[in-house]
This record gives sequence, C-alpha cells and structure tokens, in this order.
Amino acid sequence: MQRYIIKESLQNFTNESIQLDEDNFHHMKNVMRFKPGTKVYLTDATGYSCVGRIIGFSERKVELEWVADETRTSEMPVEVTIACGLSKNDKLELIIQKATELGVHKIIPFPSKHSVVKWDADKMEKKLVRFERIAQEAAEQSHRQHVPKIEKAMTLSELVSYGKDYQHKLVAYEENAKEGEYGLFAQTLTQLQPTDKILIIFGPEGGLDPSEITTLESAGFSTCSLGPRILRTETAPLYALAAISYQTELLK
Amino acid sequence: MQRYIIKESLQNFTNESIQLDEDNFHHMKNVMRFKPGTKVYLTDATGYSCVGRIIGFSERKVELEWVADETRTSEMPVEVTIACGLSKNDKLELIIQKATELGVHKIIPFPSKHSVVKWDADKMEKKLVRFERIAQEAAEQSHRQHVPKIEKAMTLSELVSYGKDYQHKLVAYEENAKEGEYGLFAQTLTQLQPTDKILIIFGPEGGLDPSEITTLESAGFSTCSLGPRILRTETAPLYALAAISYQTELLK
Repeated sequence: MQRYIIKESLQNFTNESIQLDEDNFHHMKNVMRFKPGTKVYLTDATGYSCVGRIIGFSERKVELEWVADETRTSEMPVEVTIACGLSKNDKLELIIQKATELGVHKIIPFPSKHSVVKWDADKMEKKLVRFERIAQEAAEQSHRQHVPKIEKAMTLSELVSYGKDYQHKLVAYEENAKEGEYGLFAQTLTQLQPTDKILIIFGPEGGLDPSEITTLESAGFSTCSLGPRILRTETAPLYALAAISYQTELLK
Repeated sequence: MQRYIIKESLQNFTNESIQLDEDNFHHMKNVMRFKPGTKVYLTDATGYSCVGRIIGFSERKVELEWVADETRTSEMPVEVTIACGLSKNDKLELIIQKATELGVHKIIPFPSKHSVVKWDADKMEKKLVRFERIAQEAAEQSHRQHVPKIEKAMTLSELVSYGKDYQHKLVAYEENAKEGEYGLFAQTLTQLQPTDKILIIFGPEGGLDPSEITTLESAGFSTCSLGPRILRTETAPLYALAAISYQTELLK
C-alpha cells in the first residue's frame, strides 16, 4: 500500500474526510491512477499514521476518509542526527536518500576544511528544496512516519553549539580505524536508551582536519572507527545507521 | 598510504624485488606521480599483504622492494556472499562498490521473476569486466586484502545448488518486515562463528515472487526482515553487510 506523508493535519480525520491537493492529488490520480475505494497510508507532520480510503477526485483535489489507525511504528527508538562534510558529485543526495531509508532523524551538511565545494546562501536554498524532496520521497517509499529534517549548512562551531542537546556525540575518524580502535562505537550503541539523541559527524572526501578533531574533542565529541575497512564519505553514515538500527531494533 | 591489489605473486618478495607493469605502473607513475622511495601497500591474490617501497621506474615498469609485512587484517571473520536480483539503472554497480567497502566476499547477480532487465551472454561478459574493475578499485580504496569475486549471473536453481556449501542461508523478504518479524536476522548473526559462510539473497525492484520464496524455503533458506523500514533493492544488502560487520567485528 502506498504511503503519503502530508502537510495537512490529520487531527480530525476520524470524524471528517480530508481533501488533498497538488502533489498528492497528482500522484494518486495521474501517476498511480488510483480509483475511488483504493486504500493508502497517510502520515501527518506529527507522525500520526492511519489507513485512508479514497472517496473520489474533483478537478484539483482528492478526498479521503479514515479507515483505521496504523498501530506499528517504523521509527527508530533513538534519534540519530548525522552531520556530513560537504562533498562533491551529489554524494549528499545519495546520503540523504539512503540515510532516510535507514532511519535517520536529521541531517546537517557542513563545510569542512577539506571540502572542495562551497555553497553560498542562494545555492543552499536551491539545494535544500531538492534535498527536502529526496528525503520526502525516500521517507514515503520506506514507510517512515517522519521525514528527516535537512538543516542548512552549519559551520563547525555552530555544529558544536547544536550538539549540546545530545547525550551521545561521536566523530567517525579514519585514523582510529588505522590504529585498530574498534571498541568505542559498539560501546556507545549498546548504551543507547530509548529516546536518546545521538549526533555523529562524518568528514568529507579527504577526511576531517586534525584541527577540526581537536575542536570537536574539546566540545565533548569522541572519535571512533567503524571497523577495519576505510569507508568512503558517503558509505560511513550508512554503516553507522544500519548498525544503530541493528543494535536498537533487531538485537534488543 | 595507497594500496595496490596485484595479480603478481608476492611469494618471494622478501628476497627479491618485484616489477609491476600496465595499470599499476601507470597509476603510480602518472596518476599518483610517486617518486622512488614512496611506500605503498601491496596485496596479492592469496591475501598476503605488505608494505613495499618504490625503487624506480623504467619505461613500462615500476620496481619495488619489500619493507615489512602487514600484520593486521581488514577482512571480515566470516565469508558473506550476497545474491542480488538483476535491477535497473546500474544499481548493481552501486551495490558492488558499497558491498566491497563493507566487506562482502562474493556477489552473485541473478535474474529474478520480477527483474525487468535481461542480460545475454555477450552483455554478461561486458558487465563482468566492468563489475570486476569496480570491485578492484573499491577493494583497494577501502584497504581490503581480498577483491570480492563477482560471479556470472545464475538462475535460481543454480543459486540453490550453489548454496549447499553455506552454513547460513537467508532471504531478505519484505513481507516479514510488514508482519513485524525482526528476530531471525539478529539470531543468525549472533550465532556466526569465525570462518562460517553465509549466503543472503535479495530481490530486485518489485521484490521476490512468492514462488521463488517457496523454492528457496524448500532448499533450506530462511526468510528474514531487516527491520521495520522498507529498504530499496540496493540498500538492503548494504544494511545486512554493515550489521554483519558490526556484529562480528565491533560488538564481539
């Protein structure tokens, strides 16, 4: 069954039908060619999810009625935020799509010393629109009940302030892998409690600069490796998210 | 330090220098612009790895001498083979690159009932050459000591015969996720012993057909889910590999 994560509120949906327009209307009518009677999952911005049934289409709207609440959750028990050094070749787009499928809560791009690309305010706005669409589509396709928030790019010091709310703060650092340090990441994951927030920072191609590591360590971040193989900048966050899901959703 | 996984044997390398030609010569001389004295990692087809030092370049060859054995391993303690239903849009190329970084031992493409693409023998040959290059590059970049073997596409019944050597045989099946079955994958992973072989089958877009599931179950494969979110065909194997690495290399 198709899922739609909608901007409209579903607060009164059990009592009154809802009308959706624009993208959702177009997708149901023209892309999926749904007929009245078709059931879909609907999720609103609060994460409330239910099954709705299409009553009918008007010229620009689709009307749906409530069928049943969705009882199971597809969200991770912990909130994972990843911060990724800006990298070339749309790697961030791949990260956003895959990290969304893998359950990320929030994604923060940041220009690292070794980042080759630079984004000005105008470029950032355009990128954000595209990033948000990728996250929305991936969230719907993977049956998430939350669309990950993509933040505007932050500087390292903004990132440090932002991290103050997090109980767990890690930096994936290749040098730890080279030194054979494999314990800290698993140690952190096994200590995660439901509703904990964890922030993990990943460098761009070329990795984080030692001065950036020093800044982060002073701010309470711990460096960790993700095992003995050196992962590319777009692979490391996917490894981390899969491991967190495995630890908190499958192993528990 | 750069790594080269070479076709030449390093059996006598502690006693006599080695000469590399073609791709390795070109990469060291023209791409990396290495000077004599530069040290690199060398790994041969047996997995033996060491540090070598460049003595010098001739017109078409680079000569290296042995410096030290590499003592640490970057290979997973278990052998993981993934079999992936043929899918569109070069998704298999992404899987090969990322799965190699994540430690896969062997990759088998197979035409599934819902696969839209078909490969004839000629196309398979061309694809294999490209796949092998992707695996080699990803293995070198991630500092593997083994280049994953990419098999020619197998039919489902060939895959079933092939699976007879494996102690653990799983099929990632979306229907299990929908039914909320999350236990079997973790249960299997926690039972893995060093040198065990595990084979995991992943469907193409559109998933495996129920008749394929029946065939695989009769042959001793168990269906399992990879958690509550529905993963795309190219994301599921990466999740599985990251989880296996986490379980066998980090948590142990």
